[in-house]
Order: sequence, then C-alpha cells, then structure tokens
Amino acid sequence: MCQPWKVLTPACVLGLGLIGGSLLRAATAAGREVFGYNRSIDGVQAARFDGFDATADITEALERAAAESALIVLAVPMPALPTMLDHVRTTAPNCPLTDVTSVKVAVLQAVREHGLLDRFVGGHPMTGTAHSGWAAGDEKLFAGAPWVLSVDDHVDANVWAEVMHLALDCGSFVVPARSDEHDAAAAAISHLPHLFAETLASTAADVPLAWALAAGSFRDGTRVAATAPELVRAMCEANAGPLGSVLDRAIDLLTRARDGLAATGSVAELVGSGHAARTRYDDYDRPQIRDIVVGQNGWRQELAAAGRAGGVLRSALQGPDSQE
Amino acid sequence: MCQPWKVLTPACVLGLGLIGGSLLRAATAAGREVFGYNRSIDGVQAARFDGFDATADITEALERAAAESALIVLAVPMPALPTMLDHVRTTAPNCPLTDVTSVKVAVLQAVREHGLLDRFVGGHPMTGTAHSGWAAGDEKLFAGAPWVLSVDDHVDANVWAEVMHLALDCGSFVVPARSDEHDAAAAAISHLPHLFAETLASTAADVPLAWALAAGSFRDGTRVAATAPELVRAMCEANAGPLGSVLDRAIDLLTRARDGLAATGSVAELVGSGHAARTRYDDYDRPQIRDIVVGQNGWRQELAAAGRAGGVLRSALQGPDSQE
Repeated sequence: MCQPWKVLTPACVLGLGLIGGSLLRAATAAGREVFGYNRSIDGVQAARFDGFDATADITEALERAAAESALIVLAVPMPALPTMLDHVRTTAPNCPLTDVTSVKVAVLQAVREHGLLDRFVGGHPMTGTAHSGWAAGDEKLFAGAPWVLSVDDHVDANVWAEVMHLALDCGSFVVPARSDEHDAAAAAISHLPHLFAETLASTAADVPLAWALAAGSFRDGTRVAATAPELVRAMCEANAGPLGSVLDRAIDLLTRARDGLAATGSVAELVGSGHAARTRYDDYDRPQIRDIVVGQNGWRQELAAAGRAGGVLRSALQGPDSQE
Repeated sequence: MCQPWKVLTPACVLGLGLIGGSLLRAATAAGREVFGYNRSIDGVQAARFDGFDATADITEALERAAAESALIVLAVPMPALPTMLDHVRTTAPNCPLTDVTSVKVAVLQAVREHGLLDRFVGGHPMTGTAHSGWAAGDEKLFAGAPWVLSVDDHVDANVWAEVMHLALDCGSFVVPARSDEHDAAAAAISHLPHLFAETLASTAADVPLAWALAAGSFRDGTRVAATAPELVRAMCEANAGPLGSVLDRAIDLLTRARDGLAATGSVAELVGSGHAARTRYDDYDRPQIRDIVVGQNGWRQELAAAGRAGGVLRSALQGPDSQE
C-alpha cells in the first residue's frame, strides 16, 4: 500500500531532563505535535508552566502514544531504561521507538530483551552541557550537532525515516552508523575525553598554587569534569568494552611518552602525531550523503559505509515510492 | 640612598613572537617606554609597520637597554635562550632581567651559568593561543591572566618590583612562586593537559566516523593540540622531571580506572575524584595578597607561602621606604 513518505508523526518523549526537555522544546518549535512524560512532578509542572504538554502518568502518556501511533523517544538515563521498556511493551508495543542515550549496543540489547526490536531505531544526539534537568533544556541544543541514527541489520526503513525527520527538524545533521561502530567511536571522542578531564582535575587537586596558575589548557581540559558523576559513570560503564580498548591505546601512548621523556628527553612522537591528527580534524569537512534511497536494497549497508567514511545527512534522504 | 618605589623603567623585549609581541603592544598601551628586538626582519618590519619600536640588531637593542637601564625581557623560545644570554652578558650585564618562558628551573640554571643571576627574576605569563608570531599578538593577551613571578632565594627586591609593575600594567594578576614549585604546578595544569590533548587527538585519528561524531568534549579536549609542536616540545622537554611525575600519577589513575572497569564495571573512583576536584576549582576564588612588604625581612618566603596557598596580587605591593 502507498504511504506519503514524510508523515509528521506525533512524538512522545519519555524523560524531560536536559536532552528530553530540549527535544520537547525543539520539536514543538519545529511545528510538530509532541508530548512528554517525566517521573518527577516538579519537572512536569515546570514544563507545563513553560507551555508544554507533559504528564507524570506513564500509562496516560503511552496510551496516548499508542492511540496516535506516536514515535516514542526514550530519554531516560540507562539505569531507568528497563523499567521504561516494560511500560512500552505493556502499553504501546507497536509504536515506532527510538532513544537518545549515549551508548547504542547496550540499549539495543535491552530493547531486544523486551521484544521491541522490530520498531526500534537507536539514536544519539552528540550534544549536552554540564547541567541537567528541565530547566537546563534549550530548543537550540541540537542545532548544528551530530545526531547518530543506527543502521543495524534489523532496522525498519519507515521508522528510520521518521527518526531522521525528527533529528533534522531539531536542527541536527544525521550520522548513520551501526551500533557497535558508534560505540567504538563514542568511546574515543566522548567517553575517553570525560575520563581524561577527570584525570586532569584529579592530578591538579590539592595544589592551590596549580589552581592559581590554571589557564586555558586546564580549563578546557577539565570542563566536562563538571558533568554530574552519575551521568559520566552511566555512559562510560555501559560502554565498558570499547572504552577499555581506547583506554589501553591512550595509556600506551602516555606510557611511551613518559618513557621517551625519561630516556631521551623527547616527547616528539606523541606531540607530532597529536598535532597531525588535530590538524586533519580541523581540515575535515563532513561530506554530505545524498544519493542513498532509504528502504532500497542494501540501504543500511550503504548508509553504514557512508557514515564510516565520515559522511552526514544535512537534508532528508528520499524513500521508496511505496512502503509496506 | 632613597628611590621612588615605582620607577617606570623602560623595557627591552627580546623576541617579538606571540608573547613578546603582545608584551610590546600591552606595555606600550600602558604608557610605558618599550622597544623590541626580533631575529627575523619580517617580524621587525611588521612591528614597525604597526607603529612599534623594533630592531633586528641585537647589539643595538642591548646597548640602548644598557644606556637606559631598561628591564630586559627574554621572550625567545628555550632553545634560543643561551645565545640571547651570551648577548646580554656581553652588552647589558647590569640591566634588570626577566623572562616569559614556560619553565622556570631550566631558565634559572641557564641564567646562573651566564653569571646573570643577581639581576634576574623569572616570570611566566600563563596565557597564549594556538597561534604564533608577531601577527598573532594582542595587547589584551595578558588581561586577567596569571603571571608567575619567581621568589627564589637570590631575588632582588627592586627587580622583583619592576617586573611586578610590568605584569600588573599589562593587566595580569601576579602569582608569586618558587621556580621549582612553579614547574611542578605548570606540569599539572599546562604541560600534562597538552600531552592529554595530543593523546586524545591521536587516539581518535584515522576513524572518520569518530570525527563525524565529535562534539564539545572532544573539541575542548584537543584544542591545544593545535599548538605548534615545537612549542609544546620545548616546554614539555624543558620540564621533564616534574612532567614525568605528573605523567606517572595520571597513568596510574587511568590504569586503575581501566582495571576497575574491566573487573567491576565501575569507574566510580576516578569520576568521583575528578568531579570533586573540578567543583573545588570552580569554587576557588583566588585570595588577594596585600600586606607583604617587598624587600622586608623574609619577604620572599612570605610571598612563596602566600602563593602556595593560592594567593595572588591584583595591585602592587608596597616596598620599603628606602632601597639600595
């Protein structure tokens, strides 16, 4: 049967913290119908006071989602995910489903265990601040930020397209990636930087003279150490395998630098490779993915390959003329 | 004999790169007489074109410094320091002397070897950008930044006061510290962050997907990896001992985090200590040093202790009524 490709599906956001609360705002600003659930009544009241559609009743939110075939967005921290998936399975098992959590394999596994895989496309907006809660939210939080969408083998083209439109409507560009490749990349560019910031702050602790001297490199290098520890732990610990691998690599680089400094007085190797890498990053201009048709034979593999090469979507890809 | 405490001594800046060039601009803007030397004629011509007093003739610059009893500021990279000190010893050995280099014990040793210790007070403005050369300079570069002045046992009160006034005139606040304590602190809050940035950039290199995903924590964590490699090497390699110690500490913290993650799935210890340290840093409000009289009995020890406790000077300390 024939369906219009872009349906402005209503969205139901579960969790109205920094990310979920910003999503409620951004999707509303984009003209979409969106409503939210939050466990704490304080967050719900704050959202309502700001003019948004929110409830503290999870069953009410999910019954409405089921009735409207809304896209459900899991925006709760990892530890709350199983409970939330229980609710979805009970009340709205046929709704399209996505998440905005920072690890993808662990979420995929939890979704699979709840029998909800068919309608699920994992997502991860690469944005945030050191603050949390409804009040910290911002409708511009996603503007210009990468938003990863998983292209694992099970992924449904219609659900993928719905989440793609939501991410683009919020001002993000979309990075297609397999969940395992996402997690390896996120370990290198998000989780390891967090642990480095914690390490820098810890190393300088208890030396007030060091603090008096602290300048840009220290402030920059420790900024994300201000993030709530439970959030940092949740994302690092849910990605223990890939994070362990990049920690091995980083410890090896630092150990070689230390040994080289002691033996020959030189840190040339590390400084040379780091500068070259940062220069390549500065010169890197995300190429745009244009010609892949979502749902066409091999589309998931093509998107994964394009994302692996550094490509991104800045506007919607075309879908097939008919979808079942 | 009696001298006015604040004499606006002329200043002679040797080296017109980012720091020296900014100093020439800032001191001029503060109404001081200041002139500069640069090895490359291009830098001299650019400075002259911008209306500043500069020469590529080191003997001319130092003969003028000697004639005017100018404060000589060594603003060349570490590798060029011995040559510059040869010139100073030959042409202007009795001028007050300071430097703006990022390590203090190594400079102190070089100055001692050239027999110039009596008139020397080491300095280190904790500021900079990833750019270099005359064109990168900015008269506001020092505004609000820490400027360390050494209070080693040999330091002369008059020279110390002259350098203090120069730093304050440029908009910095002054952090008094012994050279060895400066170097240990700088290893923790400047040199280690540089090596961490190089390590983060290197770890993420060759993974275009990681670059596509890179967000704030990666950009912040690798920003200083854009600094010219020879500058990073010069400061790290000249501070090998203290840097080796903080590298040991950092590698130990990261190794325990990796092992804990593998064994128990937790990074609670590192994340907890890092967050606590960053929070204390955010809450730290540099206390002001006011009541120490420069030149009075024990003044160097008092300033070192006040700096060790995190104190800074935001306005000039008083000197004794008479100085010899």
